[in-house]
Amino acid sequence: MTDITATPPIVRWAVKIEYDGTGLVGWQRQNNGISVQELLENAAARMIGGQIVPSVTAGRTDAGVHAASIVVHLDFPAGTQFRSHQIRDGLSFHLKPHRVVVLDAAPVGAEWSARFSALWRRYRFTILNRPSRAALMENHAWHVKRPLNAELMQKGADYLLGRHDFSSFRASACQANSPMRTLDELSVRREGELIFIETQARSFLHHQVRNMVGSLALVGYGQWEPDKMGEVLAACDRRVAGPTAPSDGLCFLDVGYEENPFSKNS
Amino acid sequence: MTDITATPPIVRWAVKIEYDGTGLVGWQRQNNGISVQELLENAAARMIGGQIVPSVTAGRTDAGVHAASIVVHLDFPAGTQFRSHQIRDGLSFHLKPHRVVVLDAAPVGAEWSARFSALWRRYRFTILNRPSRAALMENHAWHVKRPLNAELMQKGADYLLGRHDFSSFRASACQANSPMRTLDELSVRREGELIFIETQARSFLHHQVRNMVGSLALVGYGQWEPDKMGEVLAACDRRVAGPTAPSDGLCFLDVGYEENPFSKNS
Repeated sequence: MTDITATPPIVRWAVKIEYDGTGLVGWQRQNNGISVQELLENAAARMIGGQIVPSVTAGRTDAGVHAASIVVHLDFPAGTQFRSHQIRDGLSFHLKPHRVVVLDAAPVGAEWSARFSALWRRYRFTILNRPSRAALMENHAWHVKRPLNAELMQKGADYLLGRHDFSSFRASACQANSPMRTLDELSVRREGELIFIETQARSFLHHQVRNMVGSLALVGYGQWEPDKMGEVLAACDRRVAGPTAPSDGLCFLDVGYEENPFSKNS
Repeated sequence: MTDITATPPIVRWAVKIEYDGTGLVGWQRQNNGISVQELLENAAARMIGGQIVPSVTAGRTDAGVHAASIVVHLDFPAGTQFRSHQIRDGLSFHLKPHRVVVLDAAPVGAEWSARFSALWRRYRFTILNRPSRAALMENHAWHVKRPLNAELMQKGADYLLGRHDFSSFRASACQANSPMRTLDELSVRREGELIFIETQARSFLHHQVRNMVGSLALVGYGQWEPDKMGEVLAACDRRVAGPTAPSDGLCFLDVGYEENPFSKNS
């Protein structure tokens, strides 16, 4: 009698990672520099003697964008056996000296996807609003010299909440099938010289957060009335919106799933 | 008739600066690397064609220590004329590409000293308390893997408040005449994986903050009872206290004067 128990071809692990995107080309493997994906997959390969370990992320961040807590799944070859802390510490060890670190790890089923199982993503964009450039926050904030009015920015932001065609805030290179997205939160708050813009949605279009921030800055300068944000959104035309804010102010804050794969660890 | 109007030999400017101490040898000029003092004095010299511009700081921070807002005075030669924003922007320009920036500048009298006129100094020490090393906070926090109990640390910290002989927390190289200091605040609070220790005093002994933190960590691990801090203080002996916490967790937060020299600018 043949054993028909299906052996899964892979062992899938969800890992929660943090990285400083400074000097990296972003999540995705590219020929022109070091990517987070390459660093993570290479670290995983080193743990098992060099076999390829493909990965999928909840957020394909651009060059210079940071992540405080992002989830990736890694497909280790069938038969590999690790405990959660071994995945966490082993990957983190092999990621040295890069500013990429694994915070947590948990085994997941092969049907679970860091990307497609995600229910929401959350980003924070940081603006340093003062005459002097950044020293402590260099590479972690957009330096804006002109005074920004955060209250007006919040009024403008409110026009973008809900389900809309976000074509006006979509990069031309965006590969999504639809420009429709549902924005659940877009909050603007000032803390001294810093302005924090936090936003949450099931998913975002390519450059959507940076493009929204670039337009909100025009509102903050007083160059646009807040209700111009509604007009720009309705136009569904990238050319009528403001410029793209720089990548280094952006940080992927967190991602949520129906069932938190790491809940058993803590 | 001779003009006996006294020409002041110098024009003294107070400047408020921010710096990332990573890779620097600290405030003071040294032969083994780049110091904040050297960068700032060289930037000032470049503004006036190369003449020497001596400086005095409110806090001679060690290698790797950061500053969010520290005050320095600079003695420009008599006859040099600048407006506040020219000093701020001129120095910041010549400080590039280093992570040192001038936030504010104000003319002060020759009797005013960034160091001796200071009424209080405030520091923050940051601990990243989790299994995984720092990525986003690399060089800006002390990474402690063992769980720390912040409440116990606060209990221990309370023993150090007030006027005491701080010999147990004083570096052997300390040049102060007296080991007596008055600690006005020493607070410990946890925010998620981070522990912030903030402290304020008229002045501190060399390594005092890092030495206090090193002992408080022993309390946080549960290795010392909180009241051991009182015993260690009373011993007036550096050998009975804990180790010196690393420099990169330390940040000079602010300094206060009887009259804020920058108050007219804002």
